Amino acid sequence: MSKPLHLDPDRFFQADGVTGNIARRLFAEIENLPIISPHGHTDPSWFANDTPFEDATSLFLWPDHYVHRMLYSQGIKLTQLGMAPKGGTAEPDRRKAWKIFAEHYYLFRGTPSRTWLDHAFSTVFGIDVRLDGETADHYYDVIKEKLATPAFKPRALFKRFNIELLATTEGATDPLVHHQKIKKEWDGRVITTFRPDGVVNPDIDGFAKNMADLAEITHEDVATWKGYLAALRNRRQYFREMGGATATDHGHPTPITADLPEVECQRMLDRALKGALTPTEAEMFRGQMLTEMALMSIEDGMTMQIHPGSFRNHNAELFAGYGPDRGADIPMRASYVDNLKPLLDKVGNRSDLTILLFTLDESNYARELAPLAGHYPCLTLGPAWWFHDSPEGMIRFRRNCTETAGFYNTAGFNDDTRAFLSIPARHNVARRMDCVYLAELVATKRLPEEEAVEVAKALAYDLPKKAYHL
Amino acid sequence: MSKPLHLDPDRFFQADGVTGNIARRLFAEIENLPIISPHGHTDPSWFANDTPFEDATSLFLWPDHYVHRMLYSQGIKLTQLGMAPKGGTAEPDRRKAWKIFAEHYYLFRGTPSRTWLDHAFSTVFGIDVRLDGETADHYYDVIKEKLATPAFKPRALFKRFNIELLATTEGATDPLVHHQKIKKEWDGRVITTFRPDGVVNPDIDGFAKNMADLAEITHEDVATWKGYLAALRNRRQYFREMGGATATDHGHPTPITADLPEVECQRMLDRALKGALTPTEAEMFRGQMLTEMALMSIEDGMTMQIHPGSFRNHNAELFAGYGPDRGADIPMRASYVDNLKPLLDKVGNRSDLTILLFTLDESNYARELAPLAGHYPCLTLGPAWWFHDSPEGMIRFRRNCTETAGFYNTAGFNDDTRAFLSIPARHNVARRMDCVYLAELVATKRLPEEEAVEVAKALAYDLPKKAYHL
Amino acid sequence: MSKPLHLDPDRFFQADGVTGNIARRLFAEIENLPIISPHGHTDPSWFANDTPFEDATSLFLWPDHYVHRMLYSQGIKLTQLGMAPKGGTAEPDRRKAWKIFAEHYYLFRGTPSRTWLDHAFSTVFGIDVRLDGETADHYYDVIKEKLATPAFKPRALFKRFNIELLATTEGATDPLVHHQKIKKEWDGRVITTFRPDGVVNPDIDGFAKNMADLAEITHEDVATWKGYLAALRNRRQYFREMGGATATDHGHPTPITADLPEVECQRMLDRALKGALTPTEAEMFRGQMLTEMALMSIEDGMTMQIHPGSFRNHNAELFAGYGPDRGADIPMRASYVDNLKPLLDKVGNRSDLTILLFTLDESNYARELAPLAGHYPCLTLGPAWWFHDSPEGMIRFRRNCTETAGFYNTAGFNDDTRAFLSIPARHNVARRMDCVYLAELVATKRLPEEEAVEVAKALAYDLPKKAYHL
Repeated sequence: MSKPLHLDPDRFFQADGVTGNIARRLFAEIENLPIISPHGHTDPSWFANDTPFEDATSLFLWPDHYVHRMLYSQGIKLTQLGMAPKGGTAEPDRRKAWKIFAEHYYLFRGTPSRTWLDHAFSTVFGIDVRLDGETADHYYDVIKEKLATPAFKPRALFKRFNIELLATTEGATDPLVHHQKIKKEWDGRVITTFRPDGVVNPDIDGFAKNMADLAEITHEDVATWKGYLAALRNRRQYFREMGGATATDHGHPTPITADLPEVECQRMLDRALKGALTPTEAEMFRGQMLTEMALMSIEDGMTMQIHPGSFRNHNAELFAGYGPDRGADIPMRASYVDNLKPLLDKVGNRSDLTILLFTLDESNYARELAPLAGHYPCLTLGPAWWFHDSPEGMIRFRRNCTETAGFYNTAGFNDDTRAFLSIPARHNVARRMDCVYLAELVATKRLPEEEAVEVAKALAYDLPKKAYHL
Repeated sequence: MSKPLHLDPDRFFQADGVTGNIARRLFAEIENLPIISPHGHTDPSWFANDTPFEDATSLFLWPDHYVHRMLYSQGIKLTQLGMAPKGGTAEPDRRKAWKIFAEHYYLFRGTPSRTWLDHAFSTVFGIDVRLDGETADHYYDVIKEKLATPAFKPRALFKRFNIELLATTEGATDPLVHHQKIKKEWDGRVITTFRPDGVVNPDIDGFAKNMADLAEITHEDVATWKGYLAALRNRRQYFREMGGATATDHGHPTPITADLPEVECQRMLDRALKGALTPTEAEMFRGQMLTEMALMSIEDGMTMQIHPGSFRNHNAELFAGYGPDRGADIPMRASYVDNLKPLLDKVGNRSDLTILLFTLDESNYARELAPLAGHYPCLTLGPAWWFHDSPEGMIRFRRNCTETAGFYNTAGFNDDTRAFLSIPARHNVARRMDCVYLAELVATKRLPEEEAVEVAKALAYDLPKKAYHL
Repeated sequence: MSKPLHLDPDRFFQADGVTGNIARRLFAEIENLPIISPHGHTDPSWFANDTPFEDATSLFLWPDHYVHRMLYSQGIKLTQLGMAPKGGTAEPDRRKAWKIFAEHYYLFRGTPSRTWLDHAFSTVFGIDVRLDGETADHYYDVIKEKLATPAFKPRALFKRFNIELLATTEGATDPLVHHQKIKKEWDGRVITTFRPDGVVNPDIDGFAKNMADLAEITHEDVATWKGYLAALRNRRQYFREMGGATATDHGHPTPITADLPEVECQRMLDRALKGALTPTEAEMFRGQMLTEMALMSIEDGMTMQIHPGSFRNHNAELFAGYGPDRGADIPMRASYVDNLKPLLDKVGNRSDLTILLFTLDESNYARELAPLAGHYPCLTLGPAWWFHDSPEGMIRFRRNCTETAGFYNTAGFNDDTRAFLSIPARHNVARRMDCVYLAELVATKRLPEEEAVEVAKALAYDLPKKAYHL
């Protein structure tokens, strides 16, 4: 007997007789606002080419490292899921891979993945039975059949999801052909984000090659500090003009920043190009580049996002076989108060600059991030991120940040996902959890309800548009 | 249309049908207990001279760095609020400054500042409309008019607030003239607290001058270790006798303590007086002085407060223009278990010594502070402090500390404020939140209600008196 | 008038009208499941000899460092409790010691100790009045009388507590005579755990002696790396065969691991045996031994427990007088992501290895531990530990870990106690708190109730059996 799959309209709202009703009223005001997705990792080729998605396995399993990591943690090999390592083979039957996932779907009890997936299964595909070993084939068949119809092509889903704007993320040397094609052919608004890690982080695989590419496409001498900065300015402009970018994004191991004399910058660049930087020098190099990016943001008005604190590719064996983004990135402790000081000494008091700070170390919320964003004009808090982009994580974010930074030093929600079908689910959860938090303030008489409505709308729609200069 | 301002009598209490009722009953038992304010930063001249306060802007805006920081974070300049930098000018019209604040009052939604301010507006001034751009003038007029009447002079408010005792904080060389005048003229109990940072922290601006002053007023040779300690003993006695002090207060960057041989202390003192200490040596110097202060506390019975972990004046530009206390102090990660060991090895097992520990790094609550205070006889936990002195912060404090340290290793509430009119509001919130926590224990059958009443009374009144030896 | 002692059947459950009912239904499904106690510190001689316990003081006070620490923190000397320091004396009247405890029982309000003790007083001894100064004698008399009856002998209580399995912990050179006697004489299942700290931590008092003993009982040359490892293999086998051990346990100051070449290991061993390791080298030695233990666990199938992060014997004076385990161990900040990498690089991808991670630094739950356990096949999260083994601590554990690691990467509950009579109370609290968390998921529609029942059963019974290979 299969079990029913049912999305309760009051899910996440408090179960007591008062607070949940307030949450429900607040949510009714924002549930249907268009989705602003200003930071994420979907593939722009989906919208450029509008090729139908293929099946449940390639759509839900393969791109979702939240799913890989949980299955992998319980001893399931990626090959069993149909994912082959470099030079290796994997289970070729996608239906079989799907069945393994279905049989282990109980592992996701209590996780946001379960919430996101159930939301997509129910609202996108109209499935009304729960996923398990018995219903795996039903799921596979229904999804495959629907994906082959026009209503399930990427552009149609984008419209159906009520997405007003979707930002993808591309490396600094990307030609942005997909974004150009989208703009020419279609009225869906898909913009890029300038992510220069590949040419500002000397520790990244392929840094030398990336720098050579950067030189070639910009016709700048990236071996001189001035030329290197000019090349980056050039690409920022290209991203704005060809991809509609309004923001940059920086995924550094730490939030270290620096403000060094140009002669020292040149010396570091020389050594970076030779691959000769020590780990400490590489930190300094990245730190200097954050400050340079902030200065360029003042020039060109792009919002700057700093996403620090992930130990990338922690599992050496898995990385060797599969490369990055397979669920083996682990958060590290981070410190902002010292590390951001050089940058803040330089540009902290600018009101014409927006720097969005993210963290994977929640101990910073109340201790460092809310106090910093609650003081410096240039700083705004990005939402709960990655591992913390979950009902409990979102509530921790609001509980720990609001009292010091308020609501208006935060940036609304980011889905930050490569799982396209989870976007409506993620925004739905984020809106619900903000209403849960606001309902608590209202029910305990800390905030009048009509003010809570204003805040809820700001968090869902106005603040992301403001933070990303949209 | 202006909106109503209404302080709900059940604010903060749980909205479910059971727990909130318990909280209400508990609160009824303590709501009207006199206020013990054993740690704060009000200006004793207010009570010595009883000069009327002037207007809303100078009363509510200028002294409150919680307010500065939030407005500043959203791009409002301090000059717009009427605050001039050194050698600069500012908006001269206080009413205009007030209006800017009023128009941005929505920024404080969800913050304790909103709670404290609304409480004062409503209970002190009887205002019944919400503050916003439209009502700004009404507020300004009502407040100005009332402040000019006798009932709103500092001493009258002190009595109206039902303050049994108020402690201010003065530097080691302060002559305490205001406290002497208060004692002679008036029956309100305003005592001082001995805060020797200026003469024990070699990194403080003016350290050499402070030491010279200390030598002069004590007639001790502060260039010798023995003379230096004698001078401090002398001032502690002066503070007790002339200012009624029962406690000392120490605002150090870290909780580092030391227990060094005298010859090494003398060597550090020599270098400190020359301004020649390295940062590490300055840490050691401060750390040694904490241990010396603890030893003197055993001699003279003064409670010792350690307030570590703030990165003072993080915003270099703002500090240059405005000096300290403008909302630019940011908490840092702190460690107690190693740092306090030298002091605890020396005096940790003394029952005749009270050291109150505070933190800005809440990750220490359950990990280090509750275990330390739940073991060492000399240690007691100060309340949730500064950024964490808020409804959520207070609940985190109780939730994280109580299970290991209990209630009786805590010290009740400190308002720690320079905003005099917020004192009743802050104690009101603290009492409510303790009742919220206790009601939860009662409602979930972890504590019988009559025991919760005893605890509530202890937290509101008995424990602060005990902790501060009042 | 003495006050009633009453264990409410709904204690800990939510007080709102909906969630608490769900919690109650879930708990009804697991309340009476047998107790699996796979990690703890009871004394196996109790069950080997079945000698009656003596009185309240020796049963409840003396073995419980949670009780010592709280009383000590409020200035009560251990001698007053009848505990003599080395070469010293103490209050000889156990009844007097008990009375002091009873008079200070209010200190435990809000602590888990109160919960555990009240549970034992009520359910084991049938006492129906609250403990205080007035009822102290009644308690002492009732407990003494009952303990003298057969129904209160250790083996009888073990059966009455419905303990299916109880694991103790013994050092590597322990002959396990009690376990052998138990196995021969009795059908209660009491197994040992292999705790080799004394022979793998060169900083432990008596390391050289322990190594000599290890050599003698294994006939291995522990001065060679190969011989040393062989000796440990030998003891692991002995623990499995003679004591039924299925797990090892490692109480290290930090979670540092290492993977060094054998020549370097031999060099460290040489220096360790001479007591010549620097603190950093000693860390490396312990770290190397964690990796060696993991490798042996792959060979012999024993689950490996890592309990890091306690600053042992922080109170130097108390340690000198009383030795370890007197309530003076304090948690320290810990880092897992870097420290575990050498071990994980070696064995992290093994599905045939179970490593249980514990922490005293809860900031790691969401940041490092859940992400690590939610990815690496060999890792499982142990439950909330020690100071955090409390209602709030358990909820923090679930709230912070579940969304990333799920339920199935956790290991159910450990009581980890030397207080035998608290075992049913602790498991009862743990089961209740898991139901409280699950009820919240159900009430907020994040998990269907019938799935919550499955999870509750897994947490209470199935997962500990799986994690400990029982």
